[in-house]
Amino acid sequence: MAPVAVGILGASGYGGAGLIRRLSRHPQVELAALGSRQYGGQPLAACWPQLAGVADLEFGSNEETIEASEVIFAATPHGATAPLVKCAVDRGLRVIDLSADFRLPPERYAEWYGGAHPHPDLYEKARYGLVELHRADLAGAELVASPGCNATAASLALAPLAAAGWLGADVTITIVTGVSGAGRSVNPGLHFGEVNENARAYKVAGGHRHIAEIEATLGRAAAMGKEQRTHAPFTTPTVSFTPVVVPMTRGILASCVTRPDNAPDEAALFEHYRTFYRDDPLVQVQTELPHTKAASGSDRAIVTVRRDPRDGSLLALCAIDNLGKGAAGQAVQGFNAAFGFEETLGLDSRGVWP
Amino acid sequence: MAPVAVGILGASGYGGAGLIRRLSRHPQVELAALGSRQYGGQPLAACWPQLAGVADLEFGSNEETIEASEVIFAATPHGATAPLVKCAVDRGLRVIDLSADFRLPPERYAEWYGGAHPHPDLYEKARYGLVELHRADLAGAELVASPGCNATAASLALAPLAAAGWLGADVTITIVTGVSGAGRSVNPGLHFGEVNENARAYKVAGGHRHIAEIEATLGRAAAMGKEQRTHAPFTTPTVSFTPVVVPMTRGILASCVTRPDNAPDEAALFEHYRTFYRDDPLVQVQTELPHTKAASGSDRAIVTVRRDPRDGSLLALCAIDNLGKGAAGQAVQGFNAAFGFEETLGLDSRGVWP
Amino acid sequence: MAPVAVGILGASGYGGAGLIRRLSRHPQVELAALGSRQYGGQPLAACWPQLAGVADLEFGSNEETIEASEVIFAATPHGATAPLVKCAVDRGLRVIDLSADFRLPPERYAEWYGGAHPHPDLYEKARYGLVELHRADLAGAELVASPGCNATAASLALAPLAAAGWLGADVTITIVTGVSGAGRSVNPGLHFGEVNENARAYKVAGGHRHIAEIEATLGRAAAMGKEQRTHAPFTTPTVSFTPVVVPMTRGILASCVTRPDNAPDEAALFEHYRTFYRDDPLVQVQTELPHTKAASGSDRAIVTVRRDPRDGSLLALCAIDNLGKGAAGQAVQGFNAAFGFEETLGLDSRGVWP
Amino acid sequence: MAPVAVGILGASGYGGAGLIRRLSRHPQVELAALGSRQYGGQPLAACWPQLAGVADLEFGSNEETIEASEVIFAATPHGATAPLVKCAVDRGLRVIDLSADFRLPPERYAEWYGGAHPHPDLYEKARYGLVELHRADLAGAELVASPGCNATAASLALAPLAAAGWLGADVTITIVTGVSGAGRSVNPGLHFGEVNENARAYKVAGGHRHIAEIEATLGRAAAMGKEQRTHAPFTTPTVSFTPVVVPMTRGILASCVTRPDNAPDEAALFEHYRTFYRDDPLVQVQTELPHTKAASGSDRAIVTVRRDPRDGSLLALCAIDNLGKGAAGQAVQGFNAAFGFEETLGLDSRGVWP
Repeated sequence: MAPVAVGILGASGYGGAGLIRRLSRHPQVELAALGSRQYGGQPLAACWPQLAGVADLEFGSNEETIEASEVIFAATPHGATAPLVKCAVDRGLRVIDLSADFRLPPERYAEWYGGAHPHPDLYEKARYGLVELHRADLAGAELVASPGCNATAASLALAPLAAAGWLGADVTITIVTGVSGAGRSVNPGLHFGEVNENARAYKVAGGHRHIAEIEATLGRAAAMGKEQRTHAPFTTPTVSFTPVVVPMTRGILASCVTRPDNAPDEAALFEHYRTFYRDDPLVQVQTELPHTKAASGSDRAIVTVRRDPRDGSLLALCAIDNLGKGAAGQAVQGFNAAFGFEETLGLDSRGVWP
Repeated sequence: MAPVAVGILGASGYGGAGLIRRLSRHPQVELAALGSRQYGGQPLAACWPQLAGVADLEFGSNEETIEASEVIFAATPHGATAPLVKCAVDRGLRVIDLSADFRLPPERYAEWYGGAHPHPDLYEKARYGLVELHRADLAGAELVASPGCNATAASLALAPLAAAGWLGADVTITIVTGVSGAGRSVNPGLHFGEVNENARAYKVAGGHRHIAEIEATLGRAAAMGKEQRTHAPFTTPTVSFTPVVVPMTRGILASCVTRPDNAPDEAALFEHYRTFYRDDPLVQVQTELPHTKAASGSDRAIVTVRRDPRDGSLLALCAIDNLGKGAAGQAVQGFNAAFGFEETLGLDSRGVWP
Repeated sequence: MAPVAVGILGASGYGGAGLIRRLSRHPQVELAALGSRQYGGQPLAACWPQLAGVADLEFGSNEETIEASEVIFAATPHGATAPLVKCAVDRGLRVIDLSADFRLPPERYAEWYGGAHPHPDLYEKARYGLVELHRADLAGAELVASPGCNATAASLALAPLAAAGWLGADVTITIVTGVSGAGRSVNPGLHFGEVNENARAYKVAGGHRHIAEIEATLGRAAAMGKEQRTHAPFTTPTVSFTPVVVPMTRGILASCVTRPDNAPDEAALFEHYRTFYRDDPLVQVQTELPHTKAASGSDRAIVTVRRDPRDGSLLALCAIDNLGKGAAGQAVQGFNAAFGFEETLGLDSRGVWP
Repeated sequence: MAPVAVGILGASGYGGAGLIRRLSRHPQVELAALGSRQYGGQPLAACWPQLAGVADLEFGSNEETIEASEVIFAATPHGATAPLVKCAVDRGLRVIDLSADFRLPPERYAEWYGGAHPHPDLYEKARYGLVELHRADLAGAELVASPGCNATAASLALAPLAAAGWLGADVTITIVTGVSGAGRSVNPGLHFGEVNENARAYKVAGGHRHIAEIEATLGRAAAMGKEQRTHAPFTTPTVSFTPVVVPMTRGILASCVTRPDNAPDEAALFEHYRTFYRDDPLVQVQTELPHTKAASGSDRAIVTVRRDPRDGSLLALCAIDNLGKGAAGQAVQGFNAAFGFEETLGLDSRGVWP
């Protein structure tokens, strides 16, 4: 089969770098074009010295990138992406979208992103791409909305509980995250002198938009179990969500507490988690507590669960590389699912420790 | 008044370094002796180059240190400290104990530390030294049990809620912490290559001993309000506690969620917090989200509170330097309270940013 | 004596924060005004939460700051500072300038900063403020040009060799530095994701302006010994200077190699260094290799020297906190020297380890 | 061709992890056995969670590992490795040795490692494995002595100058290095609290053993040009070598200054470097200053050169990942050269930025 001609929008951001690294070794892909406003006309290495020699491409405009491609990966900012997706889909391209623009039903989008959804019709074609939960729904998808990094970690930690009916009335999620999820753009809050030796909560008390994704995924898991359909309605327990940024470049550790009144013991919990993810090559269930370094540089999620013997509360933990399973890795996984390729092509489950 | 002759046990650990730095500038203190098994016979600068010239002292044995002092600060490990305290108190010295050996009533000590308390009689003399909540009880104390670093952060965040009757049935606490709380001793888990670029949960699901302190403090605050007596009995909501170690040397951010059914709005919450801590020079209540860097190198705690408009849950946050308000700073504050000195002598509320 | 009314220009930068922290505890100083374009009208804590409560001041304009002060510390950018200094001096104020604008004779300034010196007449009043080498010259100075951070570290390492005639024909200096010397301003090169886990050389091969200061100081030390006059002419060996930025916020380690043909043995070298700095409270000579952490948070420089037995080359090392002895600490030290105050008022030789 | 059965000694160290990651994707290799004293009997993931699932192997003893293999990679400590190599070679295995035990001729070994070489006869079979300079000599080698990480960086930076006769009488090398080169073993100097926010020189003034390798490689390059034979005699300029450890896990930046009296201009220097390395897939010559992040997670070296217009001194810079081109990557490259495989099998030139 001829390789698929792939273009990347936002190729000069961190998401873009991860996509280039993965897609350049993907046996079914020909890297056809790289879009970047900032680096237009410059060679790949001017932006990404670590990828020097990987592809003989210069950055071009978004339009040029779309024109040269059969498939587009969009790693462009929220809001700015929807029109580009529209343009690509109208030209017959298929799209893997790393932005938030097609992750939520229009009415929830309006609530969380502050305005009417720009292309509700396109949303009909979109499939949410947490592959472990949407594999069937993704086959043949024209438009894949790749999940947010925090939503990925929290959803993978809690979906088995939701599917088993073991979520309590409340879910309290704390995300400990490195800074690269905020992108490469210049921002006072990302200055090394302000991030190093600092832990800082942000967008607390209902302020983080990934809550909407988590609630949708947990609600659908509660209703449908593991295999979800993207557009199904749902009800969900309210999620309390506190993200804390710490001095790491990569990594998310989601720590999720819930208090069901019917939770089984830990052995049954582990058994359930292992069964739930047994066919998922990029989710590793383990009894040991996960750390983000074990996922760093890889495309894997590491999950465990605990039952507090003192009060019966459950703790579900998930570690990912926010730029791997949380971004570029997951997008390529979604692409593989949509195109019927082997799920891990271009990906790597081996982390780069230390 | 003649200065008090002070000795430090465990002076070659991080707690010891913080005590030397503070006590060497304390106008009512003469630094009399430094105890260290490891550095016995060596000058101060051999262990602590950053304190070269601060005091003309060599490290000696614990016994020599006790002999040379009127007051002992014990920064020695849990378990090993109780006999040293016994020895010092029997010789008529007063003691500020940074270890966990006298923080809990003997029956709770046995439950959490796995064995009968070695000196229950001495516990009768001990006062728990979270000065903001125990100021009156500390006056004249012979033995001050200085609180654990995580307990300090979580208790200062939540005590105002407990005192006001605004704790729900459950409290979910996540602690994001630097590594220095684990001390200077050699430990595979503290290797730079394993800590850097890593977030790791540990002692989860009821496994962390500071839970016992937090529950006691919140329980007493619920019963007695702000001014607690150390030995009062209490009942308390069960605390879910998840500590996460991140790549920082210093700093603790406590993120605490509870769901009372009677919580007021944020304006009333802030007002209550400000009133609660208005006479406490080392607690700063602010509306902005705190970060640990603002406390780093200082002896201050920074506290705020939020109400999630979606579900009415409350989020209380506290940032401290675990080696400042979480250890040496708090111990000196407790010493000042016990001796009737101005509460901030030797301390500094100015952080060392960046 | 009434305290001196001091104003700080550039008070919202890292230099400014260090000055506020030191001057707010200086017994001869009244902090009178804080200048900041960016934070005009806002209270101190809006910019510097770690200094909340230290001074009851709002940031104002540069003009307001000059108007309210008897002495100005200028922590404003190179180029922008000279006109402010001119304005302040014309109004009769004395100035401590942390910028580079008055460090070099006009002809060397033109060569290194690319244009005619804006106020050569003011340069006549300026005294270079590396206090250890210019103490007598600084007494009563109206305008103190505080040295650059890299120049401070390299000059303190090498001045004893220069004064003894033990510099070879070449001097090779490598500076390993944290990022805070580049200031708090937003800059793609300071993004945490680009600095963390990265070592990067910059301004190599004669490109760094601090070379001009180092050559001047070494040349004058060769001609005059320890006690220099700022405006004396000099000749100097050419300096090769390679700065490398590493993932630290604070700290400079200068590593300086030279190959004289008359170097004595190490014992004589140590003896010479100790004698050279014996009356300098902020320079510590030691035989152990220095590390920057021992200086971090302090106002001290730590110096040592080695002789390579294989080829007789000398290695002089100096560790400083670039924001302490390399910036705010040194500026306050220069202020003390200019005003006849005790040299260490407001300063601290105690580092904040770990 | 049947894959080669490969065993790894020291598989629980950082070198071991890098070897497992690379060899498990090497198409000509079957990972046959993993040796570790510490983890004997435990599965791979107990030591290396990031490699869970990569190979279905338990750690065994060194003897078991040798027995199960046709080729041994030895990532064991200096001194302890020679007897293991002897044992393997006597059984007819071929060996890639990452330790220092066979890098130097016995007489130089005795001088730098403090004792007679344990197996001078085996040294006759050894080939030094800096593939770019020893490719022909490595073909068919029974025993490859893989170079030290610092020696790799400095040699690749300077070899083009040596080969062209452009080294001056002195060479001054400063190495800025992360901590992982010191291994995973527990060591007070590797504690996060002591490494973070710290730059520290060590083994200065002729104290670092990699000097012997650098001098040999430069001496041979001066005599023979690019293609060296391992055992050729040489004369060399004396090298001044100062290593500085900084708060990074990975990365070495070598900064090398020399002052020939015949150096050409920069254009000719670049041209020469490009020609010198034109057939080397793992060395990238560039005009931009290299940073270690561009090599991090990859097996590449990045090299540049500068001429200081002020004094004609040359600055050669090389950035590597000390665990990539500096250790496991280079060892696999040497293995490929010895076995006649394509040089980059199992390797990756793509870095993991950020």
